[in-house]
Amino acid sequence: MTEPGQLMRSEIEEQPTLLQGILDHGLDEARAVADVLRANPPRFVLLAGRGTSDHACLYAKYLVEIGLGLPAGMMSPSTLTTYSSRPDLRDVLVVVVSQSGGSPDLLETATVAQQCGARVLAVTNNAGSALAAVADHHLDVLAGDELAVAATKSYTAELLTLWLTIDAWRGGDAAAARGVPQAAARLVSRRTSMVELAARFRFADRIVLTARGYSYPTALEAALKLMETSYVAAHAFSGADLLHGPLAMIDESHPVLAVIPEGAGAAAMQPVLERLQQRGADLTVIGGPSSVSSGRPGVLLDHALSEDVSPIADIVALQQLACEMAIARGFDPDQPRGLSKVTETW
Amino acid sequence: MTEPGQLMRSEIEEQPTLLQGILDHGLDEARAVADVLRANPPRFVLLAGRGTSDHACLYAKYLVEIGLGLPAGMMSPSTLTTYSSRPDLRDVLVVVVSQSGGSPDLLETATVAQQCGARVLAVTNNAGSALAAVADHHLDVLAGDELAVAATKSYTAELLTLWLTIDAWRGGDAAAARGVPQAAARLVSRRTSMVELAARFRFADRIVLTARGYSYPTALEAALKLMETSYVAAHAFSGADLLHGPLAMIDESHPVLAVIPEGAGAAAMQPVLERLQQRGADLTVIGGPSSVSSGRPGVLLDHALSEDVSPIADIVALQQLACEMAIARGFDPDQPRGLSKVTETW
Repeated sequence: MTEPGQLMRSEIEEQPTLLQGILDHGLDEARAVADVLRANPPRFVLLAGRGTSDHACLYAKYLVEIGLGLPAGMMSPSTLTTYSSRPDLRDVLVVVVSQSGGSPDLLETATVAQQCGARVLAVTNNAGSALAAVADHHLDVLAGDELAVAATKSYTAELLTLWLTIDAWRGGDAAAARGVPQAAARLVSRRTSMVELAARFRFADRIVLTARGYSYPTALEAALKLMETSYVAAHAFSGADLLHGPLAMIDESHPVLAVIPEGAGAAAMQPVLERLQQRGADLTVIGGPSSVSSGRPGVLLDHALSEDVSPIADIVALQQLACEMAIARGFDPDQPRGLSKVTETW
Repeated sequence: MTEPGQLMRSEIEEQPTLLQGILDHGLDEARAVADVLRANPPRFVLLAGRGTSDHACLYAKYLVEIGLGLPAGMMSPSTLTTYSSRPDLRDVLVVVVSQSGGSPDLLETATVAQQCGARVLAVTNNAGSALAAVADHHLDVLAGDELAVAATKSYTAELLTLWLTIDAWRGGDAAAARGVPQAAARLVSRRTSMVELAARFRFADRIVLTARGYSYPTALEAALKLMETSYVAAHAFSGADLLHGPLAMIDESHPVLAVIPEGAGAAAMQPVLERLQQRGADLTVIGGPSSVSSGRPGVLLDHALSEDVSPIADIVALQQLACEMAIARGFDPDQPRGLSKVTETW
């Protein structure tokens, strides 16, 4: 007999070791791909993924725009597949991220993008996948078999692999990521705080998550985990987008969770927190000292990771929250309704 | 005394006349800008907007990718503003869409983009705005003063203006848009069907909208209107993204609304509809004959607009739904909680 959520929890807790493994064994691969890209850089980067891997793409988009100074965009795969467009993709690097490497629409996106002149970098957890085979370059995220339907360790593995590659591309020495395994381990060890938060949210039917910049993908990924495992209507908004309309649906009846590691994004989130308090929001902050200290309920991110690296560790707390909320609500997060591990879309 | 929603309803109903006005008086301006762009085309297009205008940007992204065959992406304004990145934007056209032309972060995005080498096309409803003044090119969407907080007519005006410009850029004669005002008028005249749907959704606390391709922005914009005016937790997912996780939160307790005009997107949505039915979803389709006919509850889009043009008219029905749902729930859609007409974000 297995307990509810045993699989998901075990993969969440595997992450510190796994992330250390990527630092130890994945860096050479990341540097090799980075060397090729640096020698012959694209003019533009497009990224494509689905679900959890879509959020890894968005994280990488911030790294490309801010770290590399290259214009970047998220692809709409349907333009190539459903609508058969054949854009001019010379000088474009298309990054396709997929845990399984097996989704038919992403495989078609990769092959059509190549026909249109793009170079394709596939980022998968399956070096034997069709996507890895067709790509010009492949990064194996080295997450090992992921058995839980709700992706957890493959997400942080994708994030760290993408960060290492882009860091090497810009000539970095990977130093800023050295603290990731320990920061993730600290969050794993503080599961009790997420069990308590899950108990507090037991009867919440909807939750709004908000963050800015590098951490916006963390909010999106947390919302997806909550929808997948707890069936709660979880929205994620960038702090700026929240103020442009969705703020009206915020009131004292539903929780708001802000993810705010230290950095420039934290400064930009302070006016958002003020507006949320004016709306009477039930606000909890998972963040650094400058956002958590001021008398609000919160969970402190007590690591010293830089803002661009922080999301690789921070999501661990929110994965735990989703897993524990599902269990508190009587669901088994290892058996989400209506889902299977590999989702095939066209 | 004004009735609840009088302002919003009046601006919704103004749209057929207003859209005809854009066809009559906005086409020359669109063609003039298109001529300049066609003579010296960019290699990439980036788009930036907030809230409703962000959805107009996403619509334009599909037109650029499919219609023009140019790679395109949505900008994350925070990369330039909060994180002070200075990417290489030579050969890039940055399209900034803003009803008021007054949001500080979009103004900063435009000026920084120019410093980074981009040409900026501003699309606003205020030719006297700061954004219009700094831009290299400006399109006035000619929507007239918009008084309701929830944007309606400025959205369809933005969509039609963007469609006309991109159509002219690719050498089109604007013929496919001629039927838009009549299609919008038909939807306006069928308000009763949306009053009935609003009554049916009176007690829904959450709603999922889904669509694909050109109509995905319609689902996003409808969700925003529902959040702004009815305070319902409204999610919008592309049909493909819905299957990658959020499907688990679908059950028989909450309504799902699919927007499916005829076309390639409709074919791609059929497997999604099947999966939703397997999950026991309470499914309503607003769509063309091939999606509405088969015994499902639905509202027929009985126009002959092509799939790329259809969203300009279709949103009218969903604007009506949001307005009527707010009223049915006892709210005044003209006075959404916590919002003002011009939202300033940084």
